[in-house]
Amino acid sequence: MFKIVLSDPSILKTSFDAISGIVDEVQIEVDTDGLRLNAMDRSHITYVHLELKAELFDIYKCETPHKINVDTDELIKVLKRAKNDDVIELTLEEESNLILVFEGATKRTFKVKLIDIDYESASQPEIEFPVKLNMPIDVFKNTIQDIEIASDKVSFKVDKDNLTLEAVGDFADAKVEYLHGEKISEEIESIYSIDKIKEMLKADRFANNLYLSLGDKLPLKFALVLEKEEGELIFLLAPRLEEQ
Amino acid sequence: MFKIVLSDPSILKTSFDAISGIVDEVQIEVDTDGLRLNAMDRSHITYVHLELKAELFDIYKCETPHKINVDTDELIKVLKRAKNDDVIELTLEEESNLILVFEGATKRTFKVKLIDIDYESASQPEIEFPVKLNMPIDVFKNTIQDIEIASDKVSFKVDKDNLTLEAVGDFADAKVEYLHGEKISEEIESIYSIDKIKEMLKADRFANNLYLSLGDKLPLKFALVLEKEEGELIFLLAPRLEEQ
Amino acid sequence: MFKIVLSDPSILKTSFDAISGIVDEVQIEVDTDGLRLNAMDRSHITYVHLELKAELFDIYKCETPHKINVDTDELIKVLKRAKNDDVIELTLEEESNLILVFEGATKRTFKVKLIDIDYESASQPEIEFPVKLNMPIDVFKNTIQDIEIASDKVSFKVDKDNLTLEAVGDFADAKVEYLHGEKISEEIESIYSIDKIKEMLKADRFANNLYLSLGDKLPLKFALVLEKEEGELIFLLAPRLEEQ
Repeated sequence: MFKIVLSDPSILKTSFDAISGIVDEVQIEVDTDGLRLNAMDRSHITYVHLELKAELFDIYKCETPHKINVDTDELIKVLKRAKNDDVIELTLEEESNLILVFEGATKRTFKVKLIDIDYESASQPEIEFPVKLNMPIDVFKNTIQDIEIASDKVSFKVDKDNLTLEAVGDFADAKVEYLHGEKISEEIESIYSIDKIKEMLKADRFANNLYLSLGDKLPLKFALVLEKEEGELIFLLAPRLEEQ
Repeated sequence: MFKIVLSDPSILKTSFDAISGIVDEVQIEVDTDGLRLNAMDRSHITYVHLELKAELFDIYKCETPHKINVDTDELIKVLKRAKNDDVIELTLEEESNLILVFEGATKRTFKVKLIDIDYESASQPEIEFPVKLNMPIDVFKNTIQDIEIASDKVSFKVDKDNLTLEAVGDFADAKVEYLHGEKISEEIESIYSIDKIKEMLKADRFANNLYLSLGDKLPLKFALVLEKEEGELIFLLAPRLEEQ
Repeated sequence: MFKIVLSDPSILKTSFDAISGIVDEVQIEVDTDGLRLNAMDRSHITYVHLELKAELFDIYKCETPHKINVDTDELIKVLKRAKNDDVIELTLEEESNLILVFEGATKRTFKVKLIDIDYESASQPEIEFPVKLNMPIDVFKNTIQDIEIASDKVSFKVDKDNLTLEAVGDFADAKVEYLHGEKISEEIESIYSIDKIKEMLKADRFANNLYLSLGDKLPLKFALVLEKEEGELIFLLAPRLEEQ
């Protein structure tokens, strides 16, 4: 059994808001170190990894490891009812229900039924990324909103000075350039689906800073890390195949 | 003829917002004491009673009693155009139109055609309720929003300590408990439709405090009373029949 | 070629928000004096004229006159991405693309493809209006929202004291009166489509003051003028023909 208490519901809300757009069901592993999940969407386009370490929580008790399988839509419906100043408590009821208690002005108890699936946990693809950049997630979010007026896909180009996001549409093109300030010698380009990027951006309240890792025709690594590194949320997004 | 002036449009707006969800047509009785209505929805699930006493109004003149029948959708459309700092004046034009004048930055005149129906006024069912409680209406509204993520029906249970609202769903359950602070010896339970409760909750700006009266498998009485008792809005909601 | 820089994007945003509801394509004339357009909707109900003089802009360079044809939906999609504190720069790329650069926290470049159409510029109908009034555009906007709950058409009546907007519906009527404060000797009445008025009202952030010109069964002239007269946006709306 475990008992976990967290005084900032937004970390769980924003994570599972993104995760529920990517996978219908997920296995959460809970052990003495913390909780984590690894999942891949059905089309193998987006991989997601969430890790929340024991030290993030106000109370963290877990004697034996658990693997709990949940329907992500049901879980996010419950999490969205948590107000920002609620304290969330998670416990397990007889290995068949996840109990969420929200305490604020009133105390509300939610029970999410665990599901019984053969879950094969996805493992994080190992990729060497030649380029690593970071920027405020709000700036990145605004850029994607700029770009999507032109097309449903976006190219990420990096040269020695700039990261350039660009979309070419039938009637309009859009381009946003950043001075990245890193030492980068190679030139790379990859194209991604904007819809998939917007799914990941639902996790925009996880952390302020976004770490992007890129390579030529490689997946996009989109990493959000809590300030004291007590947790991270990482997405990997496959590039689109484009005809020349 | 009558002439009624009210400097707080929100009382009428919030009342008719709820009433128009329950009945399509309603008869408003206006006499020297004030105005009132009694109505029952077509399926006989929700009864509503509104009473606004003469002393609530800034000006109240009514020499002979009137029964005016209105289409509630048309009336609420007009009432929604009143701004919070408008003064509303209601008069009758030749027994065929209700005239609403809103005076604020500008003066706007609306005419709602009275309808010609044989209206049988509903009378308030007389029920002895063993349990009476009250709570801030905002707390109750939040609870219903918590509960509805699990199901479309909610059970109200009262024991000596708590009022418990609970819903059991296919994938999730939700439960909210209040310490009611009343001396209650019996245990009761009734189940209601959440959609019907949400209709009543549209009147949430009528008063801050909600009075609930309950009994075992009895209707729910949902009463809102103005601070100086110059007006009240009461709903009675039939319990759902549930198989065991 | 030309280069135009404007530090208040809202003038262009609000103008083209209205214009894109009226015409799908428009020709913008750019010369040493400024930029302007004249357009008529397909059904010849609404005429629109926009003039932005060179002195409005922070930078205005135009050596030779240009006529550029744009898809208004594509242009407004791009303009809506400008934030209020962005600086907008407009240039032309080889007579085939309009380049819009928005500079704020980041620099974003949008390219709108020019379209190749035989464009016959509409010229402003010459009408003598017996009545000229003005009022804050917010007051007019609120009035139209009041009126539209009753009908989809509105009559404008002027007598020596008042401008009266009125709509008669199947179940409700609405009427708003203004003391116009002008010396007016004649009485006039014209009826217009509310939907068409709401299209013009999308330009409500162009200027605070609205100049209305009216006559008996004449078009409605709806004029917005910048404070120092460096720009104006004028609409002419044909009256509805009503059977007696």
